[in-house]
Amino acid sequence: MTTVLDTMRNHRSIRSFQEKPISKEQIERIVSTAQMASTSNFVQAYSIIQVTDQEKRKQLAHFSGDQIYVEQAPVFFVFCADLYRIQQAIHHNGKEAEFSTIENFLVSIIDTALFAQNVMLAAESMGLGGVYIGGIRNQPQQVSEVLQLPQLVMPLFGMCLGYPTEHLPEQKQRLPLSVILHENEYQRDQQNEIEQYDRAITEYYRDRTNGRRADTWSGMMARLFLGPQRKSLRDFIEKQGFPLD
Amino acid sequence: MTTVLDTMRNHRSIRSFQEKPISKEQIERIVSTAQMASTSNFVQAYSIIQVTDQEKRKQLAHFSGDQIYVEQAPVFFVFCADLYRIQQAIHHNGKEAEFSTIENFLVSIIDTALFAQNVMLAAESMGLGGVYIGGIRNQPQQVSEVLQLPQLVMPLFGMCLGYPTEHLPEQKQRLPLSVILHENEYQRDQQNEIEQYDRAITEYYRDRTNGRRADTWSGMMARLFLGPQRKSLRDFIEKQGFPLD
Repeated sequence: MTTVLDTMRNHRSIRSFQEKPISKEQIERIVSTAQMASTSNFVQAYSIIQVTDQEKRKQLAHFSGDQIYVEQAPVFFVFCADLYRIQQAIHHNGKEAEFSTIENFLVSIIDTALFAQNVMLAAESMGLGGVYIGGIRNQPQQVSEVLQLPQLVMPLFGMCLGYPTEHLPEQKQRLPLSVILHENEYQRDQQNEIEQYDRAITEYYRDRTNGRRADTWSGMMARLFLGPQRKSLRDFIEKQGFPLD
Repeated sequence: MTTVLDTMRNHRSIRSFQEKPISKEQIERIVSTAQMASTSNFVQAYSIIQVTDQEKRKQLAHFSGDQIYVEQAPVFFVFCADLYRIQQAIHHNGKEAEFSTIENFLVSIIDTALFAQNVMLAAESMGLGGVYIGGIRNQPQQVSEVLQLPQLVMPLFGMCLGYPTEHLPEQKQRLPLSVILHENEYQRDQQNEIEQYDRAITEYYRDRTNGRRADTWSGMMARLFLGPQRKSLRDFIEKQGFPLD
């Protein structure tokens, strides 16, 4: 039995899995337990699509930037922000739903993410491991066609789950607590802490590559945000009917 | 020692707290453990502002729709999506960050929510309870002024934490698993399940109000989405520098 704090502390992204299957009962236990996460005004504005069809898996792996573990993981989920269900329920009541502000979009994203983190931790507490797949947003239109998503359902991220192979990846140190946790007002001057963190990350890579990789967190961020990311996303969100006003 | 699944299953929103304080060490343990949550490309695009100043608490309680527990809870956090830190780090490297697509905004929201759910569960596993405060988005501009948030930092939601009083609220049943968990494609016809769920919610309220409250989930959703919500949010997001393109 692992405690909550230990489960969190042991987290690493797992991309390599044993072939050992995961049962339907395990999945239902994970997902139904995760549903107890908080949800804004009880809207529960999310759905999971579990992809068991191998052809669809292959397509999604490709659309996610050729991430082979999307095809190979014992379990692959696509987490979707979902206002469609609510709209249907309201229609059935003979009323109209007004989803007209970005607030409605934000609520569905936050609800989905809180729920997803419960899924991840529940799975980890049962000996599984996994990784979030943001690459599912690379080609959201194609993903939606594969999964037959109606209007007001948006694929936010994927998740691979399975029993990890014996070699667990090492953990990367997080940002210093002092830049994450502020008191009463936002502390803008974080330069010393960031420099200290950059040095820690440099050491991490140096030790693990026999000195071949010299990198810093700041440097990684500079490369990552060099140009615009996922430019097709905005059009997709609007086309899918989520309000941005 | 409580397991992860038990902690999730026992979740309820706690709004009434004992006066028993929570130590700095407890808070640091909760937050630093929660930081091990997954983060997209290691960006860690979030900050917490812990509000200890009573005057600020009073203001935030008011801005959140006069939620008295925001003022009274032993601990109150504001969770912020944060691209400011990354921008500063990149600037210091002599480079420019391009935050130009809605993808950058989504990543910071999802990162923040995954981290926040870890905070909630970590706290719950230590005997605390809490509630998310979406009301922090009612008047985001005023909240940002109270907390002195720079550009590229956005208050997403608050969280009250403390030791629950002895009376724990009852839990509301979640949507049937069959409408949350789909296989291979989105199942659009959820009408039977929603009707069954509506009946369960009706029973829940009838039993707990001696028959005075007759309600359904669909009916609650219809009232909730009757008109536009938080109309000032879009302008605030743009003003704060988060890209929506």
